[in-house]
Amino acid sequence: MNRQKKYVYLFNEGNAEMTGLLGGKGSGLAEMSNIGLNVPPGFTITTEACIDFLNSGDFPEGMWDQTLEKLHEIEKRTGKKYGGENPLLVSVRSGAPISMPGMMDTILNVGLNDSTLVSLIKATGNERFALDSYRRLIQMFGDVVFGIDKSYFEDIIRSVKVERNKKDDVDLDASDLRVIIEKFKELYIKNGKVFPLEPLDQLRISVEAVFRSWNSERAKVYRELNGIQDNLGTAVSIVSMVFGNMGNDSATGVAFTRDPNTGKKGIFAEYLTNAQGEDVVAGIRTPKEIEDLRNEIPSAYDELIRSASTLEKHYKDMQDIEFTVEKGIFYFLQTRTGKRSAKASIKIATDMAIEGLITREEALMRITPRILDTLLHPQIKRNGKEVKLGKGLAASPGAAVGMIVFTSEKAVEFAKEKKKCILVRPETTADDVRGMSVSEGFLTQKGGMTSHAAVVARAMGKPAVVGAETLNVNLKEESLTVGNITLREGDIVTVDGTSGEFYMGSVDLEVSKITEEALTLLEWADKIRKLGVRANANTPEEAIIARENGAEGIGLARTERMFLGGDRITIMRSMIMSNSLPERLKYLDLLLPMQIHDFVEFFRTMEGYPVIIRLLDPPLHEFLPNKEEIMNEMFSLKLKLTKSSDNFEIDSSIARLTDLNRIFQTIKNLEEFNPMLGFRGCRLGLIYPEIYEMQVRAIITAAKRVTEEGKTIYPEIMIPLVGVDNELRIIRERLEKVAKEVSGKEKVPYKFGTMIEIPRACLTADKIAKEADFFSFGTNDLTQMTFGYSRDDAEGKFMAAYIGEGILPYDPFTTVDEEGVGELMKMAVKKGKATKKTLEVGICGEQGGDPQTVEFCNRIGLDYVSASPLRIPIARLSAARSAIKLENDR
Amino acid sequence: MNRQKKYVYLFNEGNAEMTGLLGGKGSGLAEMSNIGLNVPPGFTITTEACIDFLNSGDFPEGMWDQTLEKLHEIEKRTGKKYGGENPLLVSVRSGAPISMPGMMDTILNVGLNDSTLVSLIKATGNERFALDSYRRLIQMFGDVVFGIDKSYFEDIIRSVKVERNKKDDVDLDASDLRVIIEKFKELYIKNGKVFPLEPLDQLRISVEAVFRSWNSERAKVYRELNGIQDNLGTAVSIVSMVFGNMGNDSATGVAFTRDPNTGKKGIFAEYLTNAQGEDVVAGIRTPKEIEDLRNEIPSAYDELIRSASTLEKHYKDMQDIEFTVEKGIFYFLQTRTGKRSAKASIKIATDMAIEGLITREEALMRITPRILDTLLHPQIKRNGKEVKLGKGLAASPGAAVGMIVFTSEKAVEFAKEKKKCILVRPETTADDVRGMSVSEGFLTQKGGMTSHAAVVARAMGKPAVVGAETLNVNLKEESLTVGNITLREGDIVTVDGTSGEFYMGSVDLEVSKITEEALTLLEWADKIRKLGVRANANTPEEAIIARENGAEGIGLARTERMFLGGDRITIMRSMIMSNSLPERLKYLDLLLPMQIHDFVEFFRTMEGYPVIIRLLDPPLHEFLPNKEEIMNEMFSLKLKLTKSSDNFEIDSSIARLTDLNRIFQTIKNLEEFNPMLGFRGCRLGLIYPEIYEMQVRAIITAAKRVTEEGKTIYPEIMIPLVGVDNELRIIRERLEKVAKEVSGKEKVPYKFGTMIEIPRACLTADKIAKEADFFSFGTNDLTQMTFGYSRDDAEGKFMAAYIGEGILPYDPFTTVDEEGVGELMKMAVKKGKATKKTLEVGICGEQGGDPQTVEFCNRIGLDYVSASPLRIPIARLSAARSAIKLENDR
Repeated sequence: MNRQKKYVYLFNEGNAEMTGLLGGKGSGLAEMSNIGLNVPPGFTITTEACIDFLNSGDFPEGMWDQTLEKLHEIEKRTGKKYGGENPLLVSVRSGAPISMPGMMDTILNVGLNDSTLVSLIKATGNERFALDSYRRLIQMFGDVVFGIDKSYFEDIIRSVKVERNKKDDVDLDASDLRVIIEKFKELYIKNGKVFPLEPLDQLRISVEAVFRSWNSERAKVYRELNGIQDNLGTAVSIVSMVFGNMGNDSATGVAFTRDPNTGKKGIFAEYLTNAQGEDVVAGIRTPKEIEDLRNEIPSAYDELIRSASTLEKHYKDMQDIEFTVEKGIFYFLQTRTGKRSAKASIKIATDMAIEGLITREEALMRITPRILDTLLHPQIKRNGKEVKLGKGLAASPGAAVGMIVFTSEKAVEFAKEKKKCILVRPETTADDVRGMSVSEGFLTQKGGMTSHAAVVARAMGKPAVVGAETLNVNLKEESLTVGNITLREGDIVTVDGTSGEFYMGSVDLEVSKITEEALTLLEWADKIRKLGVRANANTPEEAIIARENGAEGIGLARTERMFLGGDRITIMRSMIMSNSLPERLKYLDLLLPMQIHDFVEFFRTMEGYPVIIRLLDPPLHEFLPNKEEIMNEMFSLKLKLTKSSDNFEIDSSIARLTDLNRIFQTIKNLEEFNPMLGFRGCRLGLIYPEIYEMQVRAIITAAKRVTEEGKTIYPEIMIPLVGVDNELRIIRERLEKVAKEVSGKEKVPYKFGTMIEIPRACLTADKIAKEADFFSFGTNDLTQMTFGYSRDDAEGKFMAAYIGEGILPYDPFTTVDEEGVGELMKMAVKKGKATKKTLEVGICGEQGGDPQTVEFCNRIGLDYVSASPLRIPIARLSAARSAIKLENDR
Repeated sequence: MNRQKKYVYLFNEGNAEMTGLLGGKGSGLAEMSNIGLNVPPGFTITTEACIDFLNSGDFPEGMWDQTLEKLHEIEKRTGKKYGGENPLLVSVRSGAPISMPGMMDTILNVGLNDSTLVSLIKATGNERFALDSYRRLIQMFGDVVFGIDKSYFEDIIRSVKVERNKKDDVDLDASDLRVIIEKFKELYIKNGKVFPLEPLDQLRISVEAVFRSWNSERAKVYRELNGIQDNLGTAVSIVSMVFGNMGNDSATGVAFTRDPNTGKKGIFAEYLTNAQGEDVVAGIRTPKEIEDLRNEIPSAYDELIRSASTLEKHYKDMQDIEFTVEKGIFYFLQTRTGKRSAKASIKIATDMAIEGLITREEALMRITPRILDTLLHPQIKRNGKEVKLGKGLAASPGAAVGMIVFTSEKAVEFAKEKKKCILVRPETTADDVRGMSVSEGFLTQKGGMTSHAAVVARAMGKPAVVGAETLNVNLKEESLTVGNITLREGDIVTVDGTSGEFYMGSVDLEVSKITEEALTLLEWADKIRKLGVRANANTPEEAIIARENGAEGIGLARTERMFLGGDRITIMRSMIMSNSLPERLKYLDLLLPMQIHDFVEFFRTMEGYPVIIRLLDPPLHEFLPNKEEIMNEMFSLKLKLTKSSDNFEIDSSIARLTDLNRIFQTIKNLEEFNPMLGFRGCRLGLIYPEIYEMQVRAIITAAKRVTEEGKTIYPEIMIPLVGVDNELRIIRERLEKVAKEVSGKEKVPYKFGTMIEIPRACLTADKIAKEADFFSFGTNDLTQMTFGYSRDDAEGKFMAAYIGEGILPYDPFTTVDEEGVGELMKMAVKKGKATKKTLEVGICGEQGGDPQTVEFCNRIGLDYVSASPLRIPIARLSAARSAIKLENDR
């Protein structure tokens, strides 16, 4: 026997697991039926039927028969008859396997026609209700089935109200509604349609319409935007109507089992008495709150409270419910897991774990890093009145308001006067760091997601919009222009690093604070995670934030900054322009006490925690001024000389020219074709040993001093850009000598290790591990070299297109490329730990704060990740989630 | 019983295998004894004894006893007595396991004293001979044992000659020699020494002195320079004296069994009658040639001819022999494998294989690639009169003479007038290629071994000296200055790319031609090797050279050149400065016919062979002029404008300024921080598909045309800089469409493949292989990215120091770094061939012509190497040698 496929399920034949077949709504109704909640009898036609229908244009064989069979079953259960004397009405509701709120269609009161209308009036004794139900059916049917624009129906209602001087929908009486119904039918005719009077026709056509709505334009767009597959189909639930519009003991409403905005425990509901369907959402009347229901229909209130608790216990999550009260009796029409704000997500998960409803692990698995992230940065509070100037790349999240400054010097000056400022530059360089450190946020015309400005901003946790190409920054005139708007120094702008937008003037900001519950959750995360979490921090101030956010040490303290700012950059430049070792040593000696002071501060701040200090990394030319600017100044001076006749001016111009020429020559000597792959990092440290020696002298001297204060500290000295084991060996030998010399009898304990940021370092990690106590993956450079991408060039030139065209699934500078870069990392961990079991391996690239990367690092056996101070909570959470996933996968 | 160690071996107790213990000389003497050649009786004290002596300061236990025992044995064999009536004299000769010619010491006539002198005169009846032997002993002993400078002894001989009016040493009679001996003894006293009269003391002290000579300064330096271990020690051979100074039927000489300069078969010898030891080499008398010996001492001549053949058959190589004839009897004092010129090496190995003395494989294993290499380039023929101007890096071997030109244009002009020129530039760029192609050689002030000039020079096979930092090239004045010498356009210079030196004026060159024997050897190599050998050639001219040198196809034809030169660069620049696709297409259409023409030529030349064409690789800004030069010109124009009052001049200046400004803006837009890792290769091809599409259109059109001529060709299209499989997939899809469109019904066969030059491509080679018919390793870029070195920057800044300090064993841009880059290559071969068994894998990086790299490529299973046309013979030889080694290792 060719047994027919089952296309139709009574609610009590389904359950919560059958979402794929019955849709979210159908399975929810089934599950509620099963656990004894009051659901109107009904049944669901499967998504399979929908797919078959969409493919063939016809209902699949047997589906309609099964539908009629189940309809008959419902007639039995309700004691009503579809199209009969005591007429059974039904709603036809769509419900896809994945929630697509508002995208799909529902038709209520199906089964009403001119004849059953009379029966309904007779059966209920409520003419107005019956007419109201009828006009709703005609209205919804016209909209859903025939695509007659809703506004035409609304216009008719409005015109009748005006004509008859009625204010609200509820003021319309039976005679008004009859007029409306007639006008609705005329509207059909005008549109070349006829409202089908045969109830079974209504049902069939409604089911077909809901099926078809799966392929409506808006549904397709929604799916594309939300990454939902096109081949899922929608189920259709046929539910016997219960009526919220049967008078003041009737109502319809929605309820959340907890507050979706704050997460506070307790029912959060809105309802309308004597109303049906979408009235609550439609906003025609102002819905009432839950406390009113307690007074108006106490029996319904009690049932809601009781059932909400049942539902939460059953689903173990906050539920979003649709309900109808018919003559005091409470019916559930839908339940689903409720959407909620980030803050509420965290509170609900934490509370439920405390209540014992879920485990701590489950709570953690519900809080995606993105949820936590939105809590951590101040956000623009839009009011529609903002004047948006443009949009660039959202380089560092959060928003900031301040006065425009165009130079680092001016930023510092403003900061002294306690003026908040936004540094605006064509692009930033090391020279701007000082200004950046005192600015609220940054805006640049050029550069990508990993340009200097972007990287520094994320490290500082300050908002940044970069690569705003519509912007024109004119440094000479100290102005910025967008279209025909020109702003100047001191003008106020707002930058939103979360969206990449920037605004004229001051826009209100909303500053979220990390909540109590989030802190609890993070404490749980700390207990569960295996992966350590450290911070990338270049200053004691950043280190303090890192500690506050739960970092267990500093994974990367760059020392570049210690050569910048104030006198230091002048000394550094003199050092670079020196022609001999004694001359270089003279300038390094000047820097030594300043650096000792910096390290002392740092060690004190990080008492009890490891601090990884990376020795000088950038090429020397980064400490020199911009070549083009020097050339321009030289041109101007020469021009001046051709015109001037003032002796003093001539003399001073010549003197300046001489200076500039010297700087220009040094720049020319040092400039490189590909500085990223040039004379920097340990290469510099090997050719000019005196620089690293000075740094180590400063570190060990500072460590000794702080140790003598009775503090326990754990300095770790890290060498950048190692690709050959011999590099590390030679540097280690030299530096150990200095360390021994400085520490004297009392040995200052320290570790010695290396960045792993060159592909060759991964390939030869077994040999390199012999010379290192620790490895730290520098995934920025490792990604650049593994892909052969210069990040600064790639972001502006082709990265967007690459991601847009799907050549790359995501930006590998944001999330580690597991297939390529990750493969090298795995190799390095394996080879490194094979050589030295105690080898400590971490990551300090920017990806260290990215959740997917944190999980990857946990999977391949890293000891810790190091992220920017503000990303620490994200990293802690991600590490815990990864540990839980690994445990679950076992 | 504590059996004593054997420290002393009679010659007949040793053999040729015992070089380690008996040294080269000792084992040679032993072997000759064994094969029945006439060797004076003697024995050898082992290197072990030497090491023990050097460590402890004393002879090891039993050594001296064994020595005396063997001495006694020799007394028996010779019938003479050491220190006795018929006195046995011996030579004490050093001999290390590895030949250190001239480094170690020998003392002759040991055993003579005032008393044995009398006995010797009596025994030989030759007073003069005995006295001559005695003065030689005293002289050598004083030099070797006491370090009394040789010149003092020479001074005494000279003064006696003057005093007694004698011209040559042979003119000195017995009475003269007695005076000399007395004066020698006085010289000892003056130096606080005494000549030991006791013969056994002489022997002991001589052995000690020879042992000690192992650690002399000059020996240590020699070992360091030649990479010989310090712990080998020297053996000491004690040989009973035979005397070449016993009259005119006696002689001493050296012989090669074949001519060490030409390799010609037949004895090549020099000798002196009535002479001893170093007289031949010392150059005091002019040695005679072998034909003279035939006349003077026929018995000796016959014996030499006969024995030479025996020795060659025995050693299977050309031998370098020392001999002495004593009263017509021929004695061998030493044999060793003879040093020879490159040309001779090849002739001897080939001849011996033809003679059946060795196998062809053995012949190939004797010819190192370096030997072959010296044959391939013209070399400076020094005469001591050259005026050396300076020294830079030896970037491309060979030497060239020509007139100085400073610009590409001038080079072309000179070339038209058939003037040979040397292009001198601060550094070269793509703009200079045209000029380079018509110059004899290049000289640059800046740049490293892989700078543009160096790479192009090697590709063109032209001599180049680059990075000559003492040079000052002044383009404005068109002059070059070194120290106080200034040369101008048209002045003649000679550059020697083999040594890195350059000279004023014309220095004679020696042009070697590849010899008949070399061609034979290479034919053998072709039969033995498994690895294919292709050439990197960018023009049909280069392709012709490649074919002549035995290339089996083109492994890399760069298409960059097709966008340069003449009109093309102007069109290309217009294309780059276009603002829209239609505009770009317009210019590409102009380039299309030119490129079709180029490809047609190329395919015709390479009929029957595969040609791999690489689509455009460099970033677009490389086709634009230098930014700094533009800025300078703009400045000059502005300056002019401030001064000028000539309207026409003002107008034209402004017009030019406008143009320059447009170019300047384009440069600014395109310039990159790290162009090597920027917007180039397939990235460009993906964002501007029209460029690659034009190229493929040209290739397929040309292929179709040449195929229609009845020629069989094998075009292969290669995509540069692929790191992600999707890149290749998308490009393949696009290009296949163009190819299909062009080829029409008659399909033009072609392969499609990719460079493997990005670490990620190696890591994901399994996926990339799905989209490729072939892989070609671009080891230049792969090395840059794996190490994180920009070659242009590294060579100038730290590479020399890295190699000098042993951080790197060699330059990884010359020879593939097996540990890092090689590891990635292995991975790519394995993964690639696992996906696609038929995948063709080769290498086209510059290292492809390096012997060690060729061997590595053979070992890891590549199908071919591709090298610059002039390196093809080297690659063929290296490939064969690698095949033989692998076979031998089995």
